Amino acid sequence: MATLGITRNFLHSRLILNTTRQFFTTAQMSNQQYRIEKDTFGDLEVPSNRYWGAQTQRSLQNFDIGGPAERLPPPLIKAFGVVKKAASIVNISYGLDPKVGEAIQKAADDVISGKLIDHFPLVVFQTGSGTQSNMNANEVISNRAIEILGGVLGSKNPVHPNDHVNMSQSSNDTFPTVMHVAAVTEIHRSLLPALVELRDALDAKSKAFDHIIKIGRTHLQDATPLTLGQEFSGYVQQISNGIDRIKDVLPRLSLLAQGGTAVGTGLNTQKGFDVRVAAEVSKITGIEFRTAPNKFEALAAHDALVETHGALNVIACSLMKIGNDIRYLGSGPRCGLGELSLPENEPGSSIMPGKVNPTQCEAITMVAAQVMGNQTTVSIAGASGQFELNVFKPVIIKNVLQSIRLLSDGVRSLTKNCIIGIQANEKRINTLMNQSLMLATILNSHLGYDNVAKCAKKAHKEGTTLKEATVELGFLTPEEFDEKVRPELMLHP
Amino acid sequence: MATLGITRNFLHSRLILNTTRQFFTTAQMSNQQYRIEKDTFGDLEVPSNRYWGAQTQRSLQNFDIGGPAERLPPPLIKAFGVVKKAASIVNISYGLDPKVGEAIQKAADDVISGKLIDHFPLVVFQTGSGTQSNMNANEVISNRAIEILGGVLGSKNPVHPNDHVNMSQSSNDTFPTVMHVAAVTEIHRSLLPALVELRDALDAKSKAFDHIIKIGRTHLQDATPLTLGQEFSGYVQQISNGIDRIKDVLPRLSLLAQGGTAVGTGLNTQKGFDVRVAAEVSKITGIEFRTAPNKFEALAAHDALVETHGALNVIACSLMKIGNDIRYLGSGPRCGLGELSLPENEPGSSIMPGKVNPTQCEAITMVAAQVMGNQTTVSIAGASGQFELNVFKPVIIKNVLQSIRLLSDGVRSLTKNCIIGIQANEKRINTLMNQSLMLATILNSHLGYDNVAKCAKKAHKEGTTLKEATVELGFLTPEEFDEKVRPELMLHP
Amino acid sequence: MATLGITRNFLHSRLILNTTRQFFTTAQMSNQQYRIEKDTFGDLEVPSNRYWGAQTQRSLQNFDIGGPAERLPPPLIKAFGVVKKAASIVNISYGLDPKVGEAIQKAADDVISGKLIDHFPLVVFQTGSGTQSNMNANEVISNRAIEILGGVLGSKNPVHPNDHVNMSQSSNDTFPTVMHVAAVTEIHRSLLPALVELRDALDAKSKAFDHIIKIGRTHLQDATPLTLGQEFSGYVQQISNGIDRIKDVLPRLSLLAQGGTAVGTGLNTQKGFDVRVAAEVSKITGIEFRTAPNKFEALAAHDALVETHGALNVIACSLMKIGNDIRYLGSGPRCGLGELSLPENEPGSSIMPGKVNPTQCEAITMVAAQVMGNQTTVSIAGASGQFELNVFKPVIIKNVLQSIRLLSDGVRSLTKNCIIGIQANEKRINTLMNQSLMLATILNSHLGYDNVAKCAKKAHKEGTTLKEATVELGFLTPEEFDEKVRPELMLHP
Amino acid sequence: MATLGITRNFLHSRLILNTTRQFFTTAQMSNQQYRIEKDTFGDLEVPSNRYWGAQTQRSLQNFDIGGPAERLPPPLIKAFGVVKKAASIVNISYGLDPKVGEAIQKAADDVISGKLIDHFPLVVFQTGSGTQSNMNANEVISNRAIEILGGVLGSKNPVHPNDHVNMSQSSNDTFPTVMHVAAVTEIHRSLLPALVELRDALDAKSKAFDHIIKIGRTHLQDATPLTLGQEFSGYVQQISNGIDRIKDVLPRLSLLAQGGTAVGTGLNTQKGFDVRVAAEVSKITGIEFRTAPNKFEALAAHDALVETHGALNVIACSLMKIGNDIRYLGSGPRCGLGELSLPENEPGSSIMPGKVNPTQCEAITMVAAQVMGNQTTVSIAGASGQFELNVFKPVIIKNVLQSIRLLSDGVRSLTKNCIIGIQANEKRINTLMNQSLMLATILNSHLGYDNVAKCAKKAHKEGTTLKEATVELGFLTPEEFDEKVRPELMLHP
Repeated sequence: MATLGITRNFLHSRLILNTTRQFFTTAQMSNQQYRIEKDTFGDLEVPSNRYWGAQTQRSLQNFDIGGPAERLPPPLIKAFGVVKKAASIVNISYGLDPKVGEAIQKAADDVISGKLIDHFPLVVFQTGSGTQSNMNANEVISNRAIEILGGVLGSKNPVHPNDHVNMSQSSNDTFPTVMHVAAVTEIHRSLLPALVELRDALDAKSKAFDHIIKIGRTHLQDATPLTLGQEFSGYVQQISNGIDRIKDVLPRLSLLAQGGTAVGTGLNTQKGFDVRVAAEVSKITGIEFRTAPNKFEALAAHDALVETHGALNVIACSLMKIGNDIRYLGSGPRCGLGELSLPENEPGSSIMPGKVNPTQCEAITMVAAQVMGNQTTVSIAGASGQFELNVFKPVIIKNVLQSIRLLSDGVRSLTKNCIIGIQANEKRINTLMNQSLMLATILNSHLGYDNVAKCAKKAHKEGTTLKEATVELGFLTPEEFDEKVRPELMLHP
Repeated sequence: MATLGITRNFLHSRLILNTTRQFFTTAQMSNQQYRIEKDTFGDLEVPSNRYWGAQTQRSLQNFDIGGPAERLPPPLIKAFGVVKKAASIVNISYGLDPKVGEAIQKAADDVISGKLIDHFPLVVFQTGSGTQSNMNANEVISNRAIEILGGVLGSKNPVHPNDHVNMSQSSNDTFPTVMHVAAVTEIHRSLLPALVELRDALDAKSKAFDHIIKIGRTHLQDATPLTLGQEFSGYVQQISNGIDRIKDVLPRLSLLAQGGTAVGTGLNTQKGFDVRVAAEVSKITGIEFRTAPNKFEALAAHDALVETHGALNVIACSLMKIGNDIRYLGSGPRCGLGELSLPENEPGSSIMPGKVNPTQCEAITMVAAQVMGNQTTVSIAGASGQFELNVFKPVIIKNVLQSIRLLSDGVRSLTKNCIIGIQANEKRINTLMNQSLMLATILNSHLGYDNVAKCAKKAHKEGTTLKEATVELGFLTPEEFDEKVRPELMLHP
Repeated sequence: MATLGITRNFLHSRLILNTTRQFFTTAQMSNQQYRIEKDTFGDLEVPSNRYWGAQTQRSLQNFDIGGPAERLPPPLIKAFGVVKKAASIVNISYGLDPKVGEAIQKAADDVISGKLIDHFPLVVFQTGSGTQSNMNANEVISNRAIEILGGVLGSKNPVHPNDHVNMSQSSNDTFPTVMHVAAVTEIHRSLLPALVELRDALDAKSKAFDHIIKIGRTHLQDATPLTLGQEFSGYVQQISNGIDRIKDVLPRLSLLAQGGTAVGTGLNTQKGFDVRVAAEVSKITGIEFRTAPNKFEALAAHDALVETHGALNVIACSLMKIGNDIRYLGSGPRCGLGELSLPENEPGSSIMPGKVNPTQCEAITMVAAQVMGNQTTVSIAGASGQFELNVFKPVIIKNVLQSIRLLSDGVRSLTKNCIIGIQANEKRINTLMNQSLMLATILNSHLGYDNVAKCAKKAHKEGTTLKEATVELGFLTPEEFDEKVRPELMLHP
Repeated sequence: MATLGITRNFLHSRLILNTTRQFFTTAQMSNQQYRIEKDTFGDLEVPSNRYWGAQTQRSLQNFDIGGPAERLPPPLIKAFGVVKKAASIVNISYGLDPKVGEAIQKAADDVISGKLIDHFPLVVFQTGSGTQSNMNANEVISNRAIEILGGVLGSKNPVHPNDHVNMSQSSNDTFPTVMHVAAVTEIHRSLLPALVELRDALDAKSKAFDHIIKIGRTHLQDATPLTLGQEFSGYVQQISNGIDRIKDVLPRLSLLAQGGTAVGTGLNTQKGFDVRVAAEVSKITGIEFRTAPNKFEALAAHDALVETHGALNVIACSLMKIGNDIRYLGSGPRCGLGELSLPENEPGSSIMPGKVNPTQCEAITMVAAQVMGNQTTVSIAGASGQFELNVFKPVIIKNVLQSIRLLSDGVRSLTKNCIIGIQANEKRINTLMNQSLMLATILNSHLGYDNVAKCAKKAHKEGTTLKEATVELGFLTPEEFDEKVRPELMLHP
């Protein structure tokens, strides 16, 4: 058996994890076929099995920063497909040859479906306008359309990347359009459903735990009781508000820059192009988009994305709180709070039975820390526009999409692998609550504050229960105590 | 002559800036009269000319952190007046002696008016629930009410800080209520009006500059032209959106925790107390507030304030962009861009006439940097709730109110001392635009891209104007050039 | 009785807390005397009892941002005294009239001592070079020196603010010098001693707790035992490293920009001025300073302060961890971990005896959150230099000094009011440890992993002790168990 | 031709970019062979061509968060190879069968070389101790070692992942060890060389530009002159200091947690194991490492990594400043500052000749924004340790390694593609400087301040040169002016 796949894996690993500085290894290169692509700077060799052209290839060489892990994320690439398709539909009505336009749309569909994802190799840290990624989209779509129409790759004929695919567009309005389309789409398809699932799972727990009375804790110190269901209802409210927060930013996030072209004036495009592209994007995605009322703002600032990340950041803060609460409530098994049992998903330790680590809480709180840091990046980048353009576009959208993805996946994982399976340790909860001295509070109206204080202080000092102290001091009989000291009376105004 | 006020100033300075570790200097102390105040920990000396009691005094001694600069800000103190007054009104209907209640309301009015601000000496870095500041309010209002009713300060009779002023309340629901009341009030009274002023001033400039065609800049490089009015319209849109963003968080920020008492259950309060207090707060402030639908969330999380700061953060990012643009456009006078003249408000240099530093832009961008950092503080603190309580309350509200104040003041200063007085250097703007090679773009349809490129490249290489190059190459006569190359045709689709 | 000090307090409060938009209230103004001061922009009225001049007054009027709470902090003002004195000493050797020079030095001494702190009213959000504060220092020192020499305030004779006090200097090199002097001084005088105290207090606890064996916790779950002393030794190491971190940044923070004048070239100063000023500053402060090797960097960047704040940020992170641990270990009294008793410094609740809130931990963790946010502000501001000058200077130093102050005060408060008084609840610690199933680990070598697992699983399932399970399964007698299962053998390799 | 590699690419893309939720697509799965691996939770199918075992597979299924882009980075995986090899060497001397030990070392070498990178599929957002990645390393190394020794994959015989590969170790000490080894190694191999290259390239430019006198700019406004070489010397100093900053954190970053095992006590390891492992790691890497003096701190806190990121953050701030300066100095070509020409690396626009976008500056400033945000993440995560363990380990090291990688790659790209090719536009620089009014400063000593002011004001008002104004006012002849007004005299004290 011996060398199971090492050579293969090694090559493969170098490809996908860029442990070398090349995208293609020597071994691959020896078999690699190339064709020549051109731009105004001259000729370049491009791998034959890739649709991209000279400008993409040039960017690969000029921006060897971070490797494949730093590629612009798939939802952004797919959004390029959406926008290029929408533009092509509108362009036909402004004179684009329908045969060319339809080939562009078919090629764009391949981008939308994800089939061509490998043909988008560019990283975040490139030109700050995302021009090279826009050209990547133009090049891939034109070559794929040429292929569909039976032409020669790299010939720019009959489908030219600039003249046809990029018609009526500039990178400066297309890239911000794609940013908004990708963010809105991911919010609709991933984040909101994941949050709804979590809210519902928490709500189900809240209802299931409604009868379980437990000690409250403020300042980490024992306080008056509440139900475990009430405690969970706070989490439900947090997530529910989070959903509303996200929804509230959508009206501004759904505005598209397309139609502003190079500086916001719309030079080289047609009146109405902007409105019609937004309408086509809405049709393709099934989500409502509108054209931005001021294209100068839409190119030069990314306030809507900073705002959106602000909402993501609140969700991260909510999850940090919920994740921390749950892991502390589940701490133990013998020396912690032990009020909750979390699902056992994997071995916690090879030597200690009963050790279940709250790993889903750990994952989601790490997600929260990542998102809270991304907030700083997005803010700095968003504040750094200059004159007619913000040139921190790729790093902004990378961070926004990463935060959306991590929150979506993290929340889904938390819900499925933790929340749904949480169980209350009612016995432990009850024991803790009953040994609390806080129940004394309810006796104030019967015995007066000073007498109650005496009971509580005695119990605290002697390490006995409140009942023992109260009976011993002669204030109440055990029966009277049991009748009066009923935590279930302390749960409401 | 000689010693103009030094002794006095010295003492004063030590008082207000805490260059010593004491709030009262030796000299003052020698004259200082004291009375005795008590709490469950024992007796304490309190300055006779202060209304506060033992718990406030104890906090002063236990939390000597940061000095007066770190005191909780006046809007928060005033909000205590509002909430204590509202609670007192409702409490009368639940059995509070009307004589006591009315005295509390009068005393609370003195807090609302700012008269008693000196009686609130506590700093941010105290107990994380703000309990000591709540007790400070209870103590000051009870002593002032006692005074109004002719009683003895410190006697807790006939107005008790806990039993009467704090009736039906806990620090745990009162402090978050006060946080929301203060933030909403400051937003309404300071921030929104300041933003509206700025937006209007920018809008006036946008309209005044609508006829001035200038070079656009993307990547800091010359691009196609736009009007100076269009450029300013982008700023108008940013501020206008900022106003909307703030308004969108108000529905959640206007929800009050009052009525949740210690852990959110509302123990020791009455059914309906929460709704009625919110209604009274609305009446007193003239701003709509509602009771929070879930009190557990309202005590244990501060997501609404994290969200609010997220909106403030977007405004900071907008102002950073606008401030930077304006100072670069005003750079010079001879060796910068020089398109704008900013008002001269103070000497820029004692030796160089014509040097006007863009100091208002510097102030507002420093404000932006502060707010962007406060975002991190508020997020960390907001994410750190534990079980039934978040105990980072004072640092959260300090940062939120600081950001609101700095943005309000900074924006007002910017508007008044800079924006309103900005003038366009039309001659300079025109010169720059006309020497740009970007105007070549418009000739594409007349001469074809390749010929235009020749003209532009020749001009670039030889350092001549586009017109000279085009004429010299024989493509156009000077008259034809002037007829065709008209920037005013490049401002719209 | 009745109106105890309200009017006075009201006025005073308006002065020091700027609840109005004016530094001086109407009432005060009616009594206020003024003199006329001039600058190149014209005449201005200045309060007669203030030494400042026209440029300070103009700044007050042009930058009404944030009120007195946003004034530049006292250590920075004092550092102006140090630097102006040092410059004056060196200037005498370069031709400054010794009589003038000595008067400047005396006046500077009054600034150093803090006597004149009230004469420095300017806020952070002014010109970004701090020019107005430099002029404030020049004006105050010249007027005070004029007074010392028997001249007329405002006459600029015989001591001129620019020609004499500011001789050989520019705001552009003086302000960064003052920033470094203030930060280094505060680190030496406040922060390092406070950290040493905390480290020593923690170390004393670590030694005192060395014999107390307790359950370890990883992932918040029970783990193998360690001593409470070992646990505290980790905190000692963190603070000890923090001290080293701060010391490691001092070599770069102790470099002074003085001598670079306007752009770093040193125009209008003398060769050697830079070295000699640094030497004089060292003498005056008793701390070693050196002149910066490259003045261009020293004016245009503030990397040394960003670096310094990075070290402060690590200390904040350490304190967040320590503060959290201690409050969780002290949680209870009945329903938490309860391993530590924290000092009772103030009433935790009016109704619950035994409730001691970990308020010092709450204060220090709020300090940590503030410092961690200040890191973002300082980084953004530090990254924003342009060409020959960074114009975010005041906001950078404000945040650095605030972080130093809060950490110093917070650490001192924590040490004195919490750490020193911490007591171990040995009984509770012992109970928890003995009921842990983790002790099973030590039996692996005697009984084999599988048998030990059986014991532990049985105990976990049945809620019994490990000993009971082991004996019941017949693996060991009670005596054998006690002999072998000894936690004290689990504390070292 | 038609369907060039779409199917293949589609599958491949789904594998490497996880556009699906599965690591293996349906198509692949149909061919995929599996073997059974076990852990204490039961059996699991693992792909036959992968060395990982049950715990890795379980993590893949339980933490489907973020896809391959969120995998732990290769330098961390390689460091696992280093540490496992070092431990194995030491373990042989403590009784590990040398045959087993040597097989482990060979397998570890395959991890170090990067050959097995594909066998480490786990993402950042897993258990916060990194236990699953430690088990991934144990499983891969044991299976590879079994293969080397001719055994059956999954049999755990003769090389057991826990008993042999993980011998004397715990995830809790191994993972932090690996974090430090990876960070130190990447700093040595990538970051420091990249920074040295940049510093040297800047230094070469500084020297080459030493004779070029240019206008200085403070507040973006014209100021006194300096040389372009002096301006670049500031950048050299910044990078040079950055190198020192990184070196200063290495002593603390080079301390290894190994030997602390589960909670820091070193239970289940041997005395001296810690020191000897550190020595072996030093040998393998050729970089000096030492054992941490306090293992409790080393497991529970990650202050050294927070500190390290603080140094990275300063470098990011330096690069933001340098990148911004260079792109503004290169702005134009006609309507900007135009003092520098940056290399043309790619088409800036298809229609405007001469438009060269400062894309390398854009990439490096985006890198800076990312690193500045990572600082927030690392600080939050670093502050979040609890008791004996910090469980934010993976997100800390991910961010630290990302920042190191982006800074290394970004700096290398900037140096090669921008700095080295920068050219000074001497003509433009000279023109700007000569039309500046700041040169007037030097006439102060000849004509007196007032007369000079008159000249400068006249020139400013009339838009003429300083020379014209001075001559016209009769103060100097043209010859006298040229003799006296010599910028080269303004470059030094």
